[in-house]
Amino acid sequence: MTTMSKDECLVKRFMYEIANYVLYASKVIDSASVEAALEILLENIRNGRKVLVIGAGRSGLAGRAFAMRLMHLGFNVYVFGETITPAVGENDLIVAISGSGSTKLIVTAATAAKEMKAKIIAITSHRDSPLAKISDQVIMIPGRTKLASEESDYTVRQILGSHEPLAPLGTLFEVTLNVFLDSLIAELMQRLGKTEIDLRKRHATIE
Amino acid sequence: MTTMSKDECLVKRFMYEIANYVLYASKVIDSASVEAALEILLENIRNGRKVLVIGAGRSGLAGRAFAMRLMHLGFNVYVFGETITPAVGENDLIVAISGSGSTKLIVTAATAAKEMKAKIIAITSHRDSPLAKISDQVIMIPGRTKLASEESDYTVRQILGSHEPLAPLGTLFEVTLNVFLDSLIAELMQRLGKTEIDLRKRHATIE
Amino acid sequence: MTTMSKDECLVKRFMYEIANYVLYASKVIDSASVEAALEILLENIRNGRKVLVIGAGRSGLAGRAFAMRLMHLGFNVYVFGETITPAVGENDLIVAISGSGSTKLIVTAATAAKEMKAKIIAITSHRDSPLAKISDQVIMIPGRTKLASEESDYTVRQILGSHEPLAPLGTLFEVTLNVFLDSLIAELMQRLGKTEIDLRKRHATIE
Amino acid sequence: MTTMSKDECLVKRFMYEIANYVLYASKVIDSASVEAALEILLENIRNGRKVLVIGAGRSGLAGRAFAMRLMHLGFNVYVFGETITPAVGENDLIVAISGSGSTKLIVTAATAAKEMKAKIIAITSHRDSPLAKISDQVIMIPGRTKLASEESDYTVRQILGSHEPLAPLGTLFEVTLNVFLDSLIAELMQRLGKTEIDLRKRHATIE
Repeated sequence: MTTMSKDECLVKRFMYEIANYVLYASKVIDSASVEAALEILLENIRNGRKVLVIGAGRSGLAGRAFAMRLMHLGFNVYVFGETITPAVGENDLIVAISGSGSTKLIVTAATAAKEMKAKIIAITSHRDSPLAKISDQVIMIPGRTKLASEESDYTVRQILGSHEPLAPLGTLFEVTLNVFLDSLIAELMQRLGKTEIDLRKRHATIE
Repeated sequence: MTTMSKDECLVKRFMYEIANYVLYASKVIDSASVEAALEILLENIRNGRKVLVIGAGRSGLAGRAFAMRLMHLGFNVYVFGETITPAVGENDLIVAISGSGSTKLIVTAATAAKEMKAKIIAITSHRDSPLAKISDQVIMIPGRTKLASEESDYTVRQILGSHEPLAPLGTLFEVTLNVFLDSLIAELMQRLGKTEIDLRKRHATIE
Repeated sequence: MTTMSKDECLVKRFMYEIANYVLYASKVIDSASVEAALEILLENIRNGRKVLVIGAGRSGLAGRAFAMRLMHLGFNVYVFGETITPAVGENDLIVAISGSGSTKLIVTAATAAKEMKAKIIAITSHRDSPLAKISDQVIMIPGRTKLASEESDYTVRQILGSHEPLAPLGTLFEVTLNVFLDSLIAELMQRLGKTEIDLRKRHATIE
Repeated sequence: MTTMSKDECLVKRFMYEIANYVLYASKVIDSASVEAALEILLENIRNGRKVLVIGAGRSGLAGRAFAMRLMHLGFNVYVFGETITPAVGENDLIVAISGSGSTKLIVTAATAAKEMKAKIIAITSHRDSPLAKISDQVIMIPGRTKLASEESDYTVRQILGSHEPLAPLGTLFEVTLNVFLDSLIAELMQRLGKTEIDLRKRHATIE
């Protein structure tokens, strides 16, 4: 890992360290679960089924950014809590995001989806969480979350040094999540044979 | 820069390259303009004035994630387009985000704010854009945007290699923006003497 | 009740009948529970506590319109699910809206608020619903909702005649709700001694 | 018009008077322009084109409630400013709502849509407004708006009596708008041969 001079502007130093955390995270994510999620997503678009992205707070915002790109790729995608979200049911797909895996409203919504026989991909830091347990596929994203044990906290400190408040609350999970979801989009583009021009055609023209 | 084995899962490889782009970006951001923006933000919270965050599409989502943390820090912050956004006027602060600096609605909104004598911090990739020109302080964030010249595109290709569709449309701007804004929060925490516990107290309790 | 000529444009005839339903509804709402809710709201603004408005779907949209006016009146009000919604706790106020009183996410959110000792005003058509049962004050708004019993359905048919699909799903509840909440605002204005000019000062200046 | 006893709870009295205003409004709306708008909407669903609903503030909330029902009816409908709003272009339909007809962002958005050769239905109180002028079809909804002349104000006072603050700012426009849009939905249901059961099938199942 390269270093940054100590007398640099601290904001840039923090950027550097957060980016380093994502470099670390990119190595520990389990490839097999990513591949399984890609296959579920590709089957979803082939069958023209709906995708509903569910998340609260900053995870929900990352989910929306992901949903926007899925729309650009031609997915029939909706965001939980927005106006035109339709009925979902059997064979539709839920992408549920929660660092802790125990955000009440996300677990409630995912449980309701499960009862309707929708398929669920969970993105979380906690394999033993209520969300992970009801999901068909779990992708583990590292990050110090609200539930962080001292052990995972220790890993973060190793990476980031002693700057305790550098990445408060779910920040590391959220940044890694954003980069992960954008990388998933890049891979979906390749597998679907889509170019940037294809995406641009579906990009909102009025904004 | 470290390398990643060629036979790794492509999604993880993309994460790695996007993170490397942020490492690059963290070096080219102008420290003086970041310092100036920090001082405007600190003056804003000291005076108890309003902050209004304005952005469209995925930049707007990054702006909301920033607004949420400003709220956790005690800022009197609002998001353009949400329900309870109040009147803003003289001495209030607008943080306006647009990679191209020419998104129509953002320029229209920022122009209206300017007429009311609000102060404007622009975050953009284009110094000569309409948004940058009417702003009091401009922070330049690199990233291939909708208007990317061949030159900036070249820089990106140097970093990313030849994976043209790896980071479509404004992706690199948006990822860098997210990390930059989280780093700004980290520095504001330090300067305001806030701990993670302080932030947690203001974090939504119902979600 | 006045009548409308049979050969009028049907849309205008439907408006007429929906307005007549609101006239009917304005007579059956219980005055004592409205007065109790007004007192809770007035105590809230006097003490500078937070109000959080919670609702899903079209009830949630009516709730947002109400929240916007509460903001114009000077309340410290937030909308569940939006970006800058802060922590709520003891002595804060939840206004929870659900025609059926059993919308899962609203009940989940209200239950969480209850655990934090927030005060809850429920607006619903069902006194025996899970939402009504955990609330400190219930305002009953008539309207054929998802759970409509044949009895309440009968009342609606008496008013509206046989046009079964005239007001599908929760429409009558939602329209009555909108008019009720605007009337509550009118009364709050009077009791707080606020004029339209006071409201205009807080109205969003950039839109 | 029936009357209401003077000693009734004031909130119920206000409901009664607002409902009376809608009764009045239901008589003055121009039937021919409503019929023209219905035909544009029916052509839109027959051709499977997109509808984009645009509005700010409380008018935007009424627009969202309308969009939700259009979705329940099978329209390919989107809301300006939400996450998954796609490109719109030639032959798509914009429903643009602004009481004053001069809300900057709505005029900016509608102008952009016009340049892309989308068709525009404007819903406004002002026939001479910038929005009305660029629209293909204008529906005039009465209501005292931000621009209310003394003359229109006089009409409102005749209906409502002297309660100046009863319906502050755009309230009367917004309430009438809500009832008008729900009545448009009722008529679309009839013309499309849709029943409440059809709508329920598309209603969000997770909320």
